[in-house]
Amino acid sequence: MATEAASDDGSDAPDAYDALLERAKRWNAVGSAAGVLGWDQQVMMPEGGTPARSKQLSTLSSVRHDMLTDDETGELLDELEGAGLTDERAAVVREIRREYDRADAVPVELVEEISETSSEALAAWEEARAEDDFEAFAPHLEKHVELKREYAEHIDPDRDPYAVLFEDYEPCLSIERAEAILEELRETLVPMIDEIRESDRDLAVDTFEGTFPEEDQEALARDALELVGYDFDRGRLDVSSHPFTSGNQFDCRVTTRFDESDPLGAIGSTIHEFGHAQYNLGLPREHWGTPLGESRDLSVHESQSRLWENHVGRSRAFWKLFLPTFQERFPGTADAAVEDAYEAANQVYEDNFIRVEADELTYHLHIVVRFEIERDLIRGDLAVEDVPEVWNDKYEEYLGIRPETDAEGCLQDIHWSHGNFGYFPTYSLGSVMAAQLYAAAEDDLDDLEGSIADGDFDPLREWLGENVHRHGSRYETNELVKRATGEDFSADAFLAYVEGKYGELYDL
Amino acid sequence: MATEAASDDGSDAPDAYDALLERAKRWNAVGSAAGVLGWDQQVMMPEGGTPARSKQLSTLSSVRHDMLTDDETGELLDELEGAGLTDERAAVVREIRREYDRADAVPVELVEEISETSSEALAAWEEARAEDDFEAFAPHLEKHVELKREYAEHIDPDRDPYAVLFEDYEPCLSIERAEAILEELRETLVPMIDEIRESDRDLAVDTFEGTFPEEDQEALARDALELVGYDFDRGRLDVSSHPFTSGNQFDCRVTTRFDESDPLGAIGSTIHEFGHAQYNLGLPREHWGTPLGESRDLSVHESQSRLWENHVGRSRAFWKLFLPTFQERFPGTADAAVEDAYEAANQVYEDNFIRVEADELTYHLHIVVRFEIERDLIRGDLAVEDVPEVWNDKYEEYLGIRPETDAEGCLQDIHWSHGNFGYFPTYSLGSVMAAQLYAAAEDDLDDLEGSIADGDFDPLREWLGENVHRHGSRYETNELVKRATGEDFSADAFLAYVEGKYGELYDL
Repeated sequence: MATEAASDDGSDAPDAYDALLERAKRWNAVGSAAGVLGWDQQVMMPEGGTPARSKQLSTLSSVRHDMLTDDETGELLDELEGAGLTDERAAVVREIRREYDRADAVPVELVEEISETSSEALAAWEEARAEDDFEAFAPHLEKHVELKREYAEHIDPDRDPYAVLFEDYEPCLSIERAEAILEELRETLVPMIDEIRESDRDLAVDTFEGTFPEEDQEALARDALELVGYDFDRGRLDVSSHPFTSGNQFDCRVTTRFDESDPLGAIGSTIHEFGHAQYNLGLPREHWGTPLGESRDLSVHESQSRLWENHVGRSRAFWKLFLPTFQERFPGTADAAVEDAYEAANQVYEDNFIRVEADELTYHLHIVVRFEIERDLIRGDLAVEDVPEVWNDKYEEYLGIRPETDAEGCLQDIHWSHGNFGYFPTYSLGSVMAAQLYAAAEDDLDDLEGSIADGDFDPLREWLGENVHRHGSRYETNELVKRATGEDFSADAFLAYVEGKYGELYDL
Repeated sequence: MATEAASDDGSDAPDAYDALLERAKRWNAVGSAAGVLGWDQQVMMPEGGTPARSKQLSTLSSVRHDMLTDDETGELLDELEGAGLTDERAAVVREIRREYDRADAVPVELVEEISETSSEALAAWEEARAEDDFEAFAPHLEKHVELKREYAEHIDPDRDPYAVLFEDYEPCLSIERAEAILEELRETLVPMIDEIRESDRDLAVDTFEGTFPEEDQEALARDALELVGYDFDRGRLDVSSHPFTSGNQFDCRVTTRFDESDPLGAIGSTIHEFGHAQYNLGLPREHWGTPLGESRDLSVHESQSRLWENHVGRSRAFWKLFLPTFQERFPGTADAAVEDAYEAANQVYEDNFIRVEADELTYHLHIVVRFEIERDLIRGDLAVEDVPEVWNDKYEEYLGIRPETDAEGCLQDIHWSHGNFGYFPTYSLGSVMAAQLYAAAEDDLDDLEGSIADGDFDPLREWLGENVHRHGSRYETNELVKRATGEDFSADAFLAYVEGKYGELYDL
């Protein structure tokens, strides 16, 4: 039995609780050290560094795994689950228990086999995509499907394996809720995009066509970050081939990339990453390394990035504020009106096959296609060899376009080459959650749109900090959303948002 | 007893040997991961990141310590010391044994106390230096002296504690040899600098006075690195407040700094760091993470940086080659002759109190002062309170100048605030070794000076790779030098070098 000791908040807590926290802080320090190495690898490392970096990362990963799954972790958890803990502490124990059980259930050899398969599959995928040769990638995908089914079976042989894999990214959001939301998106967006295709409205885009030098775009990206309130004393902006965010409440860095023909893309992507960074920077510092100081899962993280990217960065209010800065950096756009910028930032690309180039609306049908295919693969309802045809059929059915090659079809994304099944849905769930949170913020705050147009982002940043960031992983996903918005997590707010916005833009 | 298994070089080796190597690779992967975090901290990290970074680094340090001192390491070492190993393997076991014994001897609590004392002492030193207040720093220095004496006693209570501490930086170079070399430097350089002071010769420096913009200096530093053959696919150049080198044979990065009034300083410092990097990059890749793939100790490392900085970067041949590039970047120096650059790069600063601003000659007397003081402190022959006076007396005696404040006297360096006693001598030993190695390279190579003037650095790089870098830690220091030069490590070559060079420059 644990002895009791006064803890620093004045209540009585078992020594075992402090011991568990100390352990968690250590394995999370190792994990966050690996995060710094990952950032360096993508942003700073010279190409020759790969062999050493791979060994450093695999060693840290195995060290962290050994710390987490040490018998003592299990014993402390057992002891604490019998103790009468405060809600906050019970939440900490719940989160560590979940991570421990999962790590403990899967044999290390299988984890290593998946990791090796990923390295080979990644190389095969890169070549297959370049050569438009799905058959060259198929055996690797097949192997990943098998290994991941085996992985799910170790965790729980009695449950739907896709639901088990989904929990790697969304440990506390039910797959049923996720599926229901994705279905609703499909049912509403497919006819809506059809209507847009048939609409006579053409959005103004000419003004933002041309060449926009990279160094001016970088200066503009910094302007945007300053404007929305990124704390450069706790972060950096760098360039990488894929934009990402990395860090914690003390040091959270963003990257972006530039395309000289698409200045709006870089702004959107920079603001997107700012949203991720703002979440991490808003986590309570005193709880760093414990579940109370770690972000909730992927959908919640993505809700923060999409809220800033879409609800702020694609709004009229933002362009009213930001267009003069944009025009200062790019005097060639001096004639553009706010409405031109708004339309350019919100045009729907009806003929685009590529997920990462999709607009705010068609994006979700790209996701639905992937979700349905990976779910059926893992459930054993679809054979790997049939993926290309099913992919193309679904694109035709949902988006009205049919890819002519697999390179611009089912080979376009990296995720499956990593064996990441269950990841794609979190992107759409994040957008949906963003809409629900933003609607609640609009209700709670006095004239949010006006504040944004005035360049005052404090109210929104504070609302998100108060309602989302400061809680860390204390609440499970639906509870977090419900506390912030008063409603269960659903697609209602998102559908109302897109129907209103695109109805007006395209005269639907 | 170990079972025997064929190893990849075809010979028989105990399984225990492979097991030991696997363990070493793991703890060294953790150590090198910490190295990346250290680089990031000094070059990239935003200031807010400190609390997280400190925890990451202390955790990695403790993880590495636990791996190294695990009972199994000791058991494997015991087993292998009884086995008949090849010379190469015996060297590996010797090096790991040394590190293991040392780490195992000192209680973790003492290591932590030293680390905490360092944090406090560092802050106190910064303030004391700013306020020229030695008394405010004295108690911290006192504490460090006590703790480090205790540390030495845990390792070996029967030996001179300074000799034991010296081994933290030079585990396989005898303190007697080191002391003899430093004494010889003092005996030769004190009268020589006196003669220079009295010489009528004034070296040409006017040409290199003025303002040299930082961005042009950075371009010039890159020119210099390209010229000497730095492999940018396995490295980077960045800026930091103190220049340093960090990395391994796959990825070894250098930093430099710029002073707009001193372009020669940045070139020298960049070439110095290149020498360090070239050593690490020349270590055998297949032995990374084991003693055969790790550099020998500080004096050998410093010999590589000083060889490039002094024997190459301060030579007539180099300036014959490099001056036109310099003049292209700085057209204001178009009138300078090679001899002007040579003289400017080699002037002796007779009235300089600051070690890091010293020339190639007076530098070593700065070191001798520190060496004698720290040795006497640790041996109990000098009280902390007497340090300022002894310091000033020695400066007067050896360099003919007396500091007027402690800020420009005994408070100028950071080392003692870290509790690093025994580190300073390695700087001079490195210079001395550089001269011995360079003289041997000159003997072995056909017209080395001519190659340098022609911009062909391959012969020198290859000679160093062959005679120093590729051996890793296989040979102890004196043996490494002897194999490379045919002679025991001594001050002979260095003294011949400076007597020849400065005799000519100053008409002595």
